[in-house]
Amino acid sequence: MTRQQLFENIRRKQSFLCVGLDTDLRKVPVHLTDKARRDKNFDPIFEFNRAIIDATAPYCIAYKPNLAFYEAHGVMGWMAFEKTVKYIRQRYPDQFIIADAKRGDIGNTSKLYARTFFEELDVDAVTVAPYMGEDSVTPFLGYKGKWVILLALTSNKGSHDFQLMEAQTLPAGAAQQTGEKLFERVIRKSQEWERTVLETMAGEAGSENGSAPAAVGSGMMYVVGATQGSAFADIRRLAPDHFLLVPGVGAQGGSLEEVCRYGMNAQCGLIVNSSRAIIYADATEQFADVAGQKAREVQQQMAAFLR
Amino acid sequence: MTRQQLFENIRRKQSFLCVGLDTDLRKVPVHLTDKARRDKNFDPIFEFNRAIIDATAPYCIAYKPNLAFYEAHGVMGWMAFEKTVKYIRQRYPDQFIIADAKRGDIGNTSKLYARTFFEELDVDAVTVAPYMGEDSVTPFLGYKGKWVILLALTSNKGSHDFQLMEAQTLPAGAAQQTGEKLFERVIRKSQEWERTVLETMAGEAGSENGSAPAAVGSGMMYVVGATQGSAFADIRRLAPDHFLLVPGVGAQGGSLEEVCRYGMNAQCGLIVNSSRAIIYADATEQFADVAGQKAREVQQQMAAFLR
Repeated sequence: MTRQQLFENIRRKQSFLCVGLDTDLRKVPVHLTDKARRDKNFDPIFEFNRAIIDATAPYCIAYKPNLAFYEAHGVMGWMAFEKTVKYIRQRYPDQFIIADAKRGDIGNTSKLYARTFFEELDVDAVTVAPYMGEDSVTPFLGYKGKWVILLALTSNKGSHDFQLMEAQTLPAGAAQQTGEKLFERVIRKSQEWERTVLETMAGEAGSENGSAPAAVGSGMMYVVGATQGSAFADIRRLAPDHFLLVPGVGAQGGSLEEVCRYGMNAQCGLIVNSSRAIIYADATEQFADVAGQKAREVQQQMAAFLR
Repeated sequence: MTRQQLFENIRRKQSFLCVGLDTDLRKVPVHLTDKARRDKNFDPIFEFNRAIIDATAPYCIAYKPNLAFYEAHGVMGWMAFEKTVKYIRQRYPDQFIIADAKRGDIGNTSKLYARTFFEELDVDAVTVAPYMGEDSVTPFLGYKGKWVILLALTSNKGSHDFQLMEAQTLPAGAAQQTGEKLFERVIRKSQEWERTVLETMAGEAGSENGSAPAAVGSGMMYVVGATQGSAFADIRRLAPDHFLLVPGVGAQGGSLEEVCRYGMNAQCGLIVNSSRAIIYADATEQFADVAGQKAREVQQQMAAFLR
């Protein structure tokens, strides 16, 4: 999906909501796990997801399954993950699918992860951890219409341990007098990598049809936790145009209003995730309807910020 | 496995070799993939691993499957991974099994990953990425006999992008006059987390049987690339007693002699990984024998450093 298509979806649906499919068998309604006990062909993870997706699809523009929840069930979990991605892809082709995997390894191994997520599973984006640097990240770039969502400033308490570390040296030509923080360096350097890869892609494509780099529809996005408040303003100075994936609204305590005030740009530029507050809003047979209502409430709040 | 048991195995086998099971279907001998095409019950990934394990087990003390290679094959890959872990566990119970997963997420999600790897799959150690800080790492601590192997200074080129970033402020009571580097902060802070968790565990155990923290047999290890040469000396100042998992000897160009000179401690303190140079040493029907010979050669080099 290109950035333009993503923005079109946001405008049309008046929503920048991503529903986090953190499906935990200990939290899904008991009638689903009961049924799975009686019928071994019944996949309670996938069936939960399917009901949630059908109910929330009109109100969101993205889904984000977190791999941890699927890996927890081994082979059965992987099957449920694959089925979920396929279901969204076929039934709701305008949804942006994010594999929340936080992968990252040496170049050759990252290349393999990229192939798995973009070619085999065909998701639109993967979250990637930046600690191992350039060759761990760039293999995820360079797939047309696919996106790397790099961890920058996360929503958890531990984000303060390393991400806010201030460097001794200033970046060349920096206006500010304080040292560059680790998350700022991640955003700055990863944009250099992005530029290099996209220029190469555009050059290759250009020799055929003269398309501009922007048309490649691929590149970086960043994870910035909703709990980071005014840090969004700093991030927008560094990355004015990039989309930000924002977890932490709702259960983790971040404010949608603050995120929009500091983080929104002319093309919205935000994908705000909510998981628990939507998918576990109810544990009865009406769980999907209630999830749909919750998603609709968030969508209506979002519409006000999009005007 | 406790640190003492690991050291006993190293002494007995005169080896601190870890064989990396980076099993790639495009690189395994063709007779295996051919057989898989004819017989759909034949699992070429697992069968390759089993042959490699049987041939190398006398010469190594650990196996490290990298999850990327298994995820690349979806459900089939996960089945091969689970079978491989089970095979090693049952057939060679003295082998230390490392899931090279480089996971790390917000607290609740890391807890889930920890449960998957330590309770469901029953590996001895998981590699973890530190970017998200304390609550992303500590859920992996606190399992008796299980280990977190935290990325500190990796073997790839990209390790220079962020891991060597120097902080503006010195750590309290620091002797050195230069700023603390990110990988140094990772090692320092994670040892604080380790201490807190182990003291809690020892307190709980102590109220029953008075065991000392060391007896818990759990905690941190660090990934330090063999390509980092004299940085091992700096790391040993920060973490004199911890085991280091060292990738990058062989194909990536690191020197075993340098690693041993700067990195070895009184209990060896090193687990040196080799993947491609051993498992893909030969692509004929004799591949396993050749892998065994290669592992034996490395073991003999290692024995000289253990004397």
